[in-house]
Amino acid sequence: MRLRFQRSLDDLKEKLLVMAGMAEQSIQRAVEAYRVRDLSVCDLVDHGELAINRFEREIDQMALDLLAMEQPMAIDLRFILAVIKINADLERVGDAATSISDRVRELEAFPVADLPVDTPKMASLAAAMVRKALQAFIEADANIAESVLAMDDSVDKLNETAYFTLLNVMKTQPHMTPQALSALMISRSLERVADHATNIAEDVIFWVRGADVRHYVPVNQPRPA
Amino acid sequence: MRLRFQRSLDDLKEKLLVMAGMAEQSIQRAVEAYRVRDLSVCDLVDHGELAINRFEREIDQMALDLLAMEQPMAIDLRFILAVIKINADLERVGDAATSISDRVRELEAFPVADLPVDTPKMASLAAAMVRKALQAFIEADANIAESVLAMDDSVDKLNETAYFTLLNVMKTQPHMTPQALSALMISRSLERVADHATNIAEDVIFWVRGADVRHYVPVNQPRPA
Repeated sequence: MRLRFQRSLDDLKEKLLVMAGMAEQSIQRAVEAYRVRDLSVCDLVDHGELAINRFEREIDQMALDLLAMEQPMAIDLRFILAVIKINADLERVGDAATSISDRVRELEAFPVADLPVDTPKMASLAAAMVRKALQAFIEADANIAESVLAMDDSVDKLNETAYFTLLNVMKTQPHMTPQALSALMISRSLERVADHATNIAEDVIFWVRGADVRHYVPVNQPRPA
Repeated sequence: MRLRFQRSLDDLKEKLLVMAGMAEQSIQRAVEAYRVRDLSVCDLVDHGELAINRFEREIDQMALDLLAMEQPMAIDLRFILAVIKINADLERVGDAATSISDRVRELEAFPVADLPVDTPKMASLAAAMVRKALQAFIEADANIAESVLAMDDSVDKLNETAYFTLLNVMKTQPHMTPQALSALMISRSLERVADHATNIAEDVIFWVRGADVRHYVPVNQPRPA
């Protein structure tokens, strides 16, 4: 009985990892679609989102069944709740990828503009945060999870720099406004991906330590804008 | 025993309603701060966010305790899971309010610009969606929840119109770019509030009907951009 339950928990974890891989891939693909302006890659992102949504439902149902059929002990309960929350965040990473893909489609009507922002760098960082948050989850390692929280500051800074750089492009070169605005919205979407990775890392810490680090602001560190 | 459990569920519901009231108020306040450009109202929003974050933790802990100490039946289990998910969405409504408040602070350096978008209208609609989603939750009424899903289309349309209107302002009146960009970001934040209300409505339907309507796209209706 207990062994079967343990196996079910392992299955749940396995499925969440597949989901995480899909979410991360969708972000990588969306930014690749943007970089090379390839609408066929946008199609892959949109199809991927359907699969992610399906997976989200399956994972939720598995978690619910486990809660309903077994009486999990406190640590397993925390684990299952973490899975449910991480699952929701991964699904929204997929949504962010679709938002990026929508922008790429809109851009088709405009010539490529050379903009002074490094979107692929921001995308790599955001995707790395998702990967690392999931690594923290697999290894049940709160320290790795904490390193994700630190990475979020870098993404916030990149995003803020992009905002003011692109605002300046729009003011001084209004003919490039559509491209600059799209870059700005994509940068925002990537910041949201980083936020979801942060949420996941917090949920891992909550599960592992039993403590709630959400909304924890270290002393001497201003709240990011 | 059963009676005490029922009372605990009622307490949990009560607390979530207070949380919802706080989240809705934070959006109303943030848009009021924007409308009248009043930074003291921004302060209220920022203080409110701390309270919302505290409430989120308390509700999560109550839900976890209920799951750990009792063995809820399927319907109560679904209810508690719905509370956990709705709680997370309400906290992010608070985050959206803070994003708006951050924009209002940035705008202080710029003169007020008369822009052809109706931000207060969009805010009213988004706040009404949150209110209605919670009404659906209180009354356990999936039909009310479904009406929230329909309202989301209106907000998406308003947001899309605002996007192209403001893009045009930026292209043709570049000196108004900072104000137009802020209006665009605020419109985005309100669209996110509407998305959270939609998530809440879907969780209510999941709880009430036991069916999963998430990612349900009605026939003959194109996916919103």
